[in-house]
Amino acid sequence: MTQLKPTLTTCFSPALLHLYNLSSAIVVVIDVFRATSTIASALYNGAECIIPVDTVEKAIDISTSLGAIAAGERDGQIAPGLQHGNSPLEYSKEFIAGKTLVLTTTNGTRLLQMALDNNASTIITGSFPNLSAVCDFIIKENKNVVLGCAGWKDRFNVEDTLFAGAVISKVKDHFTIHCDSSLVANSMYEQHNDNLYNFAPQLTHYHRLVSRFGLIEDIRFCLTPNTANVLPLYVGGKLLIK
Amino acid sequence: MTQLKPTLTTCFSPALLHLYNLSSAIVVVIDVFRATSTIASALYNGAECIIPVDTVEKAIDISTSLGAIAAGERDGQIAPGLQHGNSPLEYSKEFIAGKTLVLTTTNGTRLLQMALDNNASTIITGSFPNLSAVCDFIIKENKNVVLGCAGWKDRFNVEDTLFAGAVISKVKDHFTIHCDSSLVANSMYEQHNDNLYNFAPQLTHYHRLVSRFGLIEDIRFCLTPNTANVLPLYVGGKLLIK
Repeated sequence: MTQLKPTLTTCFSPALLHLYNLSSAIVVVIDVFRATSTIASALYNGAECIIPVDTVEKAIDISTSLGAIAAGERDGQIAPGLQHGNSPLEYSKEFIAGKTLVLTTTNGTRLLQMALDNNASTIITGSFPNLSAVCDFIIKENKNVVLGCAGWKDRFNVEDTLFAGAVISKVKDHFTIHCDSSLVANSMYEQHNDNLYNFAPQLTHYHRLVSRFGLIEDIRFCLTPNTANVLPLYVGGKLLIK
Repeated sequence: MTQLKPTLTTCFSPALLHLYNLSSAIVVVIDVFRATSTIASALYNGAECIIPVDTVEKAIDISTSLGAIAAGERDGQIAPGLQHGNSPLEYSKEFIAGKTLVLTTTNGTRLLQMALDNNASTIITGSFPNLSAVCDFIIKENKNVVLGCAGWKDRFNVEDTLFAGAVISKVKDHFTIHCDSSLVANSMYEQHNDNLYNFAPQLTHYHRLVSRFGLIEDIRFCLTPNTANVLPLYVGGKLLIK
């Protein structure tokens, strides 16, 4: 008798997350440009932990009381009142090792909160820099998985979809997948995986980051697999390496 | 000086429609399997008009008072209490010419109601059977367009996305398109347009309709362009040929 495989589904927007049963699932929070890439980078470079919060005020209050670094962005720029932003390249070993980062972002933080509100069993974060760590973990856990795309202010975006597709292309033999979102994610990834960086100028978020703020090196980092290959797991309000 | 083109965006779920400004836009309601294909078919075959309603009770009440045909589906089958369903093949000229159809469906009706609630300027319905009529109309009107996919109970689906892609591939020179959903819709359509029918077995809704209810001829009709090439326009609670 064939053993029943766990299911894998892809959710294209935080505003659709309530449609999925998260209570026995691992939710992979995906915000490729740039929150989850920054989270992987900071933890890989030795950050003690990352505390995601929803407002700049909370980021400042918590970082002050903990002696931590407050960081975040709004609409792609360092949030007013903060000294550090949401670029994965800001968090070198020299700067972040041994420190706690309190982070607030436009989309990733919101999705994480929605996953908590919908009683997700386990929450991890995924991005190209930690692609293999995510795939290894979900295969090993053998539980249902929801790939949650943060999108842009609840709208669909392509970069999170491409990462979902990258995961699917690597783990699909281990899961039951009957989900049109996953079909499209996998298809888009397989169409562009040999040259994500050249495809990127077609994405709306690329224009927001590159044309407006010149963040071309961020884009390159965020589309390169396995350069910060750790698994951020959300436990008790903090993201820690599993 | 180049004249500014109107914008075209694609919305993947009724639950995301509030993110778009509809008040000066044409909303194309898309429910390929099968409501908008059925609407095109019935009007093409001479139905006087179609009255979309949200409940079976309303369908029965209104059809009784108007001497109209009550029809509709829930979860892919003829709705309990009704004699006619949501198959485009039910509405031949012999049956429907000169009559009014009162129709309630799982997804299409909901999207139309959301478009009304969000003050859409103009509402039309689109499907492969009336693809050219939709494209001709939106090019001629020269207004902003939102391609609204009905999905399945607020989830993303591929068949509505493919129709959005078909429209985009035909009208893109006439619009400004900066929208990741439109990019994906166009890409999926261009990848599969020479053989939509063979791609269909990969879609979740195909299994719902074909494996469970044997509706293979419906699928074929719903994926064939321009066989019922009329433009259903929503005016005063009714869909009429423009």
